Amino acid sequence: MALRTYQDYIDSLKKMRPNIYKFDELIEDVTTHPATRNTVEGHGTSYRLYDNPEEKEILTTTSHLTGEPVSRYLSIIQTAEEMFANSRLKRHMFNLTGTCTGGRCVGWTSLNSMFITSWEIDKEFGTDYHQRLIAWLKDAQARDITIAGALTDPKGDRTKPPSMQDDPDMNLHIVEYRDDGIVVRGAKAMICGVAAANEIFILPGSAYKETDKDYAVSFVIPRDIEGLTIVETRHPSDTREHEEGFDIPVKDGGITQSFLLFEDVFVPKERVFMAGEFKYTLNAIKYFVSTYRAAIGGCVAGQGDVKIGAAVLLARANGLSSKVFNDKIIQMNINNETTFGMGIAAGAMGSKHPSGAWVCDMMLSNVNKVHVATLPYETSRLAQEIGGGISETGCMPSYKDYTSEKYGNLIQKYLKAAHSAESRTRAARLIEWLTIGAGVPGCMHGGGSPDGAKLFVRLLSNMEDKVNMAKRLAGITEDIPEPQKKK
Amino acid sequence: MALRTYQDYIDSLKKMRPNIYKFDELIEDVTTHPATRNTVEGHGTSYRLYDNPEEKEILTTTSHLTGEPVSRYLSIIQTAEEMFANSRLKRHMFNLTGTCTGGRCVGWTSLNSMFITSWEIDKEFGTDYHQRLIAWLKDAQARDITIAGALTDPKGDRTKPPSMQDDPDMNLHIVEYRDDGIVVRGAKAMICGVAAANEIFILPGSAYKETDKDYAVSFVIPRDIEGLTIVETRHPSDTREHEEGFDIPVKDGGITQSFLLFEDVFVPKERVFMAGEFKYTLNAIKYFVSTYRAAIGGCVAGQGDVKIGAAVLLARANGLSSKVFNDKIIQMNINNETTFGMGIAAGAMGSKHPSGAWVCDMMLSNVNKVHVATLPYETSRLAQEIGGGISETGCMPSYKDYTSEKYGNLIQKYLKAAHSAESRTRAARLIEWLTIGAGVPGCMHGGGSPDGAKLFVRLLSNMEDKVNMAKRLAGITEDIPEPQKKK
Amino acid sequence: MALRTYQDYIDSLKKMRPNIYKFDELIEDVTTHPATRNTVEGHGTSYRLYDNPEEKEILTTTSHLTGEPVSRYLSIIQTAEEMFANSRLKRHMFNLTGTCTGGRCVGWTSLNSMFITSWEIDKEFGTDYHQRLIAWLKDAQARDITIAGALTDPKGDRTKPPSMQDDPDMNLHIVEYRDDGIVVRGAKAMICGVAAANEIFILPGSAYKETDKDYAVSFVIPRDIEGLTIVETRHPSDTREHEEGFDIPVKDGGITQSFLLFEDVFVPKERVFMAGEFKYTLNAIKYFVSTYRAAIGGCVAGQGDVKIGAAVLLARANGLSSKVFNDKIIQMNINNETTFGMGIAAGAMGSKHPSGAWVCDMMLSNVNKVHVATLPYETSRLAQEIGGGISETGCMPSYKDYTSEKYGNLIQKYLKAAHSAESRTRAARLIEWLTIGAGVPGCMHGGGSPDGAKLFVRLLSNMEDKVNMAKRLAGITEDIPEPQKKK
Amino acid sequence: MALRTYQDYIDSLKKMRPNIYKFDELIEDVTTHPATRNTVEGHGTSYRLYDNPEEKEILTTTSHLTGEPVSRYLSIIQTAEEMFANSRLKRHMFNLTGTCTGGRCVGWTSLNSMFITSWEIDKEFGTDYHQRLIAWLKDAQARDITIAGALTDPKGDRTKPPSMQDDPDMNLHIVEYRDDGIVVRGAKAMICGVAAANEIFILPGSAYKETDKDYAVSFVIPRDIEGLTIVETRHPSDTREHEEGFDIPVKDGGITQSFLLFEDVFVPKERVFMAGEFKYTLNAIKYFVSTYRAAIGGCVAGQGDVKIGAAVLLARANGLSSKVFNDKIIQMNINNETTFGMGIAAGAMGSKHPSGAWVCDMMLSNVNKVHVATLPYETSRLAQEIGGGISETGCMPSYKDYTSEKYGNLIQKYLKAAHSAESRTRAARLIEWLTIGAGVPGCMHGGGSPDGAKLFVRLLSNMEDKVNMAKRLAGITEDIPEPQKKK
Repeated sequence: MALRTYQDYIDSLKKMRPNIYKFDELIEDVTTHPATRNTVEGHGTSYRLYDNPEEKEILTTTSHLTGEPVSRYLSIIQTAEEMFANSRLKRHMFNLTGTCTGGRCVGWTSLNSMFITSWEIDKEFGTDYHQRLIAWLKDAQARDITIAGALTDPKGDRTKPPSMQDDPDMNLHIVEYRDDGIVVRGAKAMICGVAAANEIFILPGSAYKETDKDYAVSFVIPRDIEGLTIVETRHPSDTREHEEGFDIPVKDGGITQSFLLFEDVFVPKERVFMAGEFKYTLNAIKYFVSTYRAAIGGCVAGQGDVKIGAAVLLARANGLSSKVFNDKIIQMNINNETTFGMGIAAGAMGSKHPSGAWVCDMMLSNVNKVHVATLPYETSRLAQEIGGGISETGCMPSYKDYTSEKYGNLIQKYLKAAHSAESRTRAARLIEWLTIGAGVPGCMHGGGSPDGAKLFVRLLSNMEDKVNMAKRLAGITEDIPEPQKKK
Repeated sequence: MALRTYQDYIDSLKKMRPNIYKFDELIEDVTTHPATRNTVEGHGTSYRLYDNPEEKEILTTTSHLTGEPVSRYLSIIQTAEEMFANSRLKRHMFNLTGTCTGGRCVGWTSLNSMFITSWEIDKEFGTDYHQRLIAWLKDAQARDITIAGALTDPKGDRTKPPSMQDDPDMNLHIVEYRDDGIVVRGAKAMICGVAAANEIFILPGSAYKETDKDYAVSFVIPRDIEGLTIVETRHPSDTREHEEGFDIPVKDGGITQSFLLFEDVFVPKERVFMAGEFKYTLNAIKYFVSTYRAAIGGCVAGQGDVKIGAAVLLARANGLSSKVFNDKIIQMNINNETTFGMGIAAGAMGSKHPSGAWVCDMMLSNVNKVHVATLPYETSRLAQEIGGGISETGCMPSYKDYTSEKYGNLIQKYLKAAHSAESRTRAARLIEWLTIGAGVPGCMHGGGSPDGAKLFVRLLSNMEDKVNMAKRLAGITEDIPEPQKKK
Repeated sequence: MALRTYQDYIDSLKKMRPNIYKFDELIEDVTTHPATRNTVEGHGTSYRLYDNPEEKEILTTTSHLTGEPVSRYLSIIQTAEEMFANSRLKRHMFNLTGTCTGGRCVGWTSLNSMFITSWEIDKEFGTDYHQRLIAWLKDAQARDITIAGALTDPKGDRTKPPSMQDDPDMNLHIVEYRDDGIVVRGAKAMICGVAAANEIFILPGSAYKETDKDYAVSFVIPRDIEGLTIVETRHPSDTREHEEGFDIPVKDGGITQSFLLFEDVFVPKERVFMAGEFKYTLNAIKYFVSTYRAAIGGCVAGQGDVKIGAAVLLARANGLSSKVFNDKIIQMNINNETTFGMGIAAGAMGSKHPSGAWVCDMMLSNVNKVHVATLPYETSRLAQEIGGGISETGCMPSYKDYTSEKYGNLIQKYLKAAHSAESRTRAARLIEWLTIGAGVPGCMHGGGSPDGAKLFVRLLSNMEDKVNMAKRLAGITEDIPEPQKKK
Repeated sequence: MALRTYQDYIDSLKKMRPNIYKFDELIEDVTTHPATRNTVEGHGTSYRLYDNPEEKEILTTTSHLTGEPVSRYLSIIQTAEEMFANSRLKRHMFNLTGTCTGGRCVGWTSLNSMFITSWEIDKEFGTDYHQRLIAWLKDAQARDITIAGALTDPKGDRTKPPSMQDDPDMNLHIVEYRDDGIVVRGAKAMICGVAAANEIFILPGSAYKETDKDYAVSFVIPRDIEGLTIVETRHPSDTREHEEGFDIPVKDGGITQSFLLFEDVFVPKERVFMAGEFKYTLNAIKYFVSTYRAAIGGCVAGQGDVKIGAAVLLARANGLSSKVFNDKIIQMNINNETTFGMGIAAGAMGSKHPSGAWVCDMMLSNVNKVHVATLPYETSRLAQEIGGGISETGCMPSYKDYTSEKYGNLIQKYLKAAHSAESRTRAARLIEWLTIGAGVPGCMHGGGSPDGAKLFVRLLSNMEDKVNMAKRLAGITEDIPEPQKKK
């Protein structure tokens, strides 16, 4: 059963123990509950597409472990071309679902990061994490499961390391090392797509030193494991998902982010890939971000494509030619292609790790993260500018008012322009959803903040080489070092 | 009763006929209904402040009609200094309410525009609109009422003038001219602060030609006039206003925008200031935008001030010094002061109209509109960048989850950082509210779109003078005109 | 002789002792030497314009000392309106000369700064600097002289104060206090328009502490005073000023910046306005920059006007309508009006000092300085973009080649487009001159660097007020101070 | 003789017929004349580097025609990896020479474009252009020559096609078709690196229709062919190249751009690759720009690297730590890596043409061209901002003044800061040279203008696909086409 059907996927979610809450209410069935069904539908798209041969090409590859066809989301990326496929797949999924299906791609990135990191740990310490991961991965590929990924800890006071926090649980940590596994406590925050996932892949949230070694932990668990409580966070206009009508215009996708609360969860050793090897937490992070910050350029480009389409749609519905907005549409395209292209470049300039996995170029990945944190904002602004006042903040009466028996006819009369009131309203609601509504993904801080990325850019910039180029060209022979700090 | 109390204001609203709907439900009391009470509270702030002598200074001036102290919102701006006071007042009100109190300032701008325009109409046509307006204004000042303003028509197909629309009602128009007044039909869309207003001042929505003369209409009406139905539009996360707790963190202000549905409304002639004089519709618009696009720079600066404060607050709550974000905070200040300053400049470079009113410089006003449509977006992005992941899309559990008996303690445990969970959550919710939530005003298209402003910039730029400067400097004597279009 | 003629001005320069060098050569007559004649011509424009009543209005005002008409450049600015006139005058002079006539406006700003500062010093110390300045100024007004201003010291190692430098002369300082005056040694660097000036007004280059009190010095001297040697610096393509033809297309203006070398220069006490009162060096700088950074917005707008004109001219000469470049031209106008407008705003929000002089708003002035350091670069880029390849780096054969007997006919043949080769070449050379040639003023660092301006923005931003606004709105009652540095 | 030595290269230039002029003077020896020696030296670097095995790797590849090692500049790019090598090589050459060595890379791009285009022409018309090109290329590889490339015609009135110009020579054209070749007349303008080239590869300057078929011409000629006169254009501060000292600080590179004047030049048929096949002019341009606009990102990144180095160098020479400017240095790096990375991406997303050559992705190439036309300007501004006043316009006394017997000691005294006066001056002159001096390449319009690139972005953006994505997501079923123009 290497590739399962959409229905298999839905069924697998239905079978799980309910442990997800929102609004202080337990969600019995994530596939039908308004708070989660859209994101499940979005993730489900990745299974539906197997039926279309052209799409299947985008979504699947050959397992290097078994030679079987597998979902790319469960593959180890081994070449630049596969990395390009990663960017393209993410763009495609945003094109189809309008937003993030983070429960697939963060998991993918996490397992790729730990594939490499576990190899390195084993090499130094003689452990068997890498084999465990491979064993688990083979099985995961066979089951074709959906895996969310989780890095971000609550962190508490940002200026203190985990072990110096007043509360040691502010970062997820091992509270007991047992022969058959580990027991962990703490939380992960703002984790995307968990409601649509079968399993969750955990990474350390930062690079740690020896004093924080119990925080150096990576593992993978079923989403409904004992001791894990999940609380979905709010997002803009989220209660509309509980309403009738098209004020949330998109049913084919949706985003959820949750807090994972670990109350002494036992993880069996076969599912543990790091337990105390603090020295490798930095690498786990680095391998994660090098891939993630490359491919996220595809994500925001994919949403940007939809922003362009929505803006043109609304302009036409208003009776205006898209030509009127040519310069804006070109700029939106430039923004999209820049984040997509920089991700491709990071893949192209990457290199093969001895473990067999592909590592993207860190400089280009991190530069891209800065673009991801800025350009989509301009694209959104331009969509709102083209769309006009009703799209800017979704300034139209609610669906209930639109269909009011008392005055709905008037609302519809006045929302009509060159095309039907409904089409125009749906287009405007789509822009709202994409730019200031429930479809806005948290890509600025997701996968780490732009300031962190800038730090990498600075570190990787070979500044002294550049100084030496300039010295040579200017004919300067004197030694001109960085000035010493005055004591 | 030149300056009334907050309680008088509230009472005046309670006494009005209920004619405002949201979610297909009639709002019986705008001062207590969740959909409108925050905006009423925001507008009410302008009455509360009379009690503080320093604030009173900002809010009041002397009526040039009566010599009595009056609210600035009901004054005719007669000097550059009064225009500066306009910008300062708007900034101050955003500082205090966090968002737009459009039911005061659009009305103010409208009455100033028609004060001038009616003077011009009377001069050419011998009508008595100007005296009517003065009579009404004296009374309005005495009653110290709150006046919303309404320009934007639904417009229908953007490429056709009003009379060429399939439906003649797509722009508000006169359907009957009577001796004692006019009857109007149509709608105004996206009108701000109506729920908090006693009256509504109507302006033509565009410049019209003779064939559209029935659309050349300006008047002022009680908000609860017979034949007028008002439907409040949605805004981001608006249903949270109906919830308990602090997911909407701000109670001191709120924004509403509504559709006004005119079903053959009779307006008595004393309240009509233009009725068919299409030739002056362009000027009505011009005088409106010259003031509005200047002062709106104060609005967005005032909200920008709060964005800075909220970002610093959340950084500190995270345990981080604001110094870490120095360059971002400086940029936010630069953005704020630029829109504020350009508005001041438009006032300073303005000129006195023969009617006695002050007209801002159109070039600088319109340049400012372009800044207003761009810089606040960057300020918002920076607030989210400083605030971190929880502020970006408000990615935290709901208040219900925060106070859950089952796991609320864990949510609170993990939301705590350097300060209490509640303070940190409130600060993050404030950033969300300001940047992607219910506090976002529609300033990009409010008062007209940036593309319209750019058109004015182009028209007012004296390009040939600049060409001649360049010619003279370059020593070019040949005539170099614009090339003729090829036939 | 309150307002002298252009010829008087030229004669006054001819009469001075030659003490200016360039290319290791003494310039005998600054009014005819190729290195200086263009800047003299530019400054002379301010005298020529007296003949035109409309221009005279822009250039002159009434002396508050004598009631006589005087050049604005020699006036004390006493109202916001006079400050507006300052911005307008600077814009106008750039319109007419294409570049900076720094020998007038820096002097003006310097004397205004010391007018205020000397008043403050006298108030505290009972000195008579203010009266000395007034006496000198009356005479200067009567003679209608041109005054350069000089602040910038060579400074040596930027991390050390003047008295800690290896060489005490790296900042201009008093080496002898005498009863009849002072003796100064050191240098001032990059001083604008000295060659066109009759006198030079010296300010301290920075804010100093007590250990550096000998550096706290301000005075005014004839340009040709004994002991002063002046060396003109290079600027882009400066040797073209020594060539025939139109490769420097502009003869009506030019910029010079020089190094002033003070070798024990004696300054009589009547001309000394600060001598050791280190406590007031900060204010001297503050009063200077508040005015300077406001009005410089007029300067760069004035040059921006010419950039627009030149770009349109070249587009037309290429056969293209300016409409093709509408969005670029609008952006250029926006940039111009923004720096101009922010300067106006700084004037409008200024305040009257007890000395009678007007002090611009420091926040708005410093914000403007940041715009001045960025927006004109975009305007230049757009001019080059509109102008096409020949304007980008002035990529055309030299005038010598243009007129070559061998192949000049071919060069002219191929430089022709929709208009004559000469007009097209002149227009392209003008863009080159304005954007990458001899006409580029040093406005980014002139009057201090943008990073210094940003420091002021940060200091003046009332951050705690903004934090308190946010706290109040978010309903936060807990004290949330800046975190303390960890020890 | 597949790879020749630097000395061979120099000798080959010395042997050519002098036909290059500047300042109306014939340049007898381009290798020693001040106007051309720097660019010859820059181009010569590409031969010198063969001696270093590591550099040789960057510079050479294997000829697919002969299997011999050849200069990359003479190779046909056949894979994405070779395209990456192109970008890297260009960046490296800018690192080493500080500026453009256009006489190598434009030729390279031209021959790659015509390799493909000639294959296509032959396929349709049965001609033998492709074999001619291969034959010539084998020989060129064996001789290891330097080839400039030339596209840009003078063009005359931009609104008219070549055959409609008043003067038919405004675009290079065939005036005679002979059995043994063609005779051409006209000019090419702003051609880079010709003085350092052995041969010049000519491409049509635009896409032409049938009426302009005589303008559809491509060929390669020796630089000193009979009938060809070359006139070097000016660039900023070019006469400094004729001076002693370090006011031009760089000797290892320099840029020249020239006008090529063709007075009935006969080109033998073996060297002609297109002669009248107008239908393929568009493709010749497309294949050229797809590669060129990708790789130019490496060029400007390479110069950007030097700008960073120069800025840090000057900061240190001023006594300041580079840390003070961290955010600016990071931004400069981001700009560099963006243009470099987008070029890589265009290569990675390219495809193999049936002729065997690699064609870059047109969308990404053209997006990159827009970045190339903007980001380096910001990088330059930041270099000037970090460098301070002396670097902004090179505001320091000339080398003659620096070494003056009269006052040179004082100039040197005052130019000294934390390091020697000479180092500091050289660093400042380098920034000047790079940002506003003779080192500024014409990359905005070189290889076509950004507006042309934007046109491609618009055409290639699959807008209807994006509209359909949006329609599907928003649940819109109505047909919403582009509105028809009103008649």
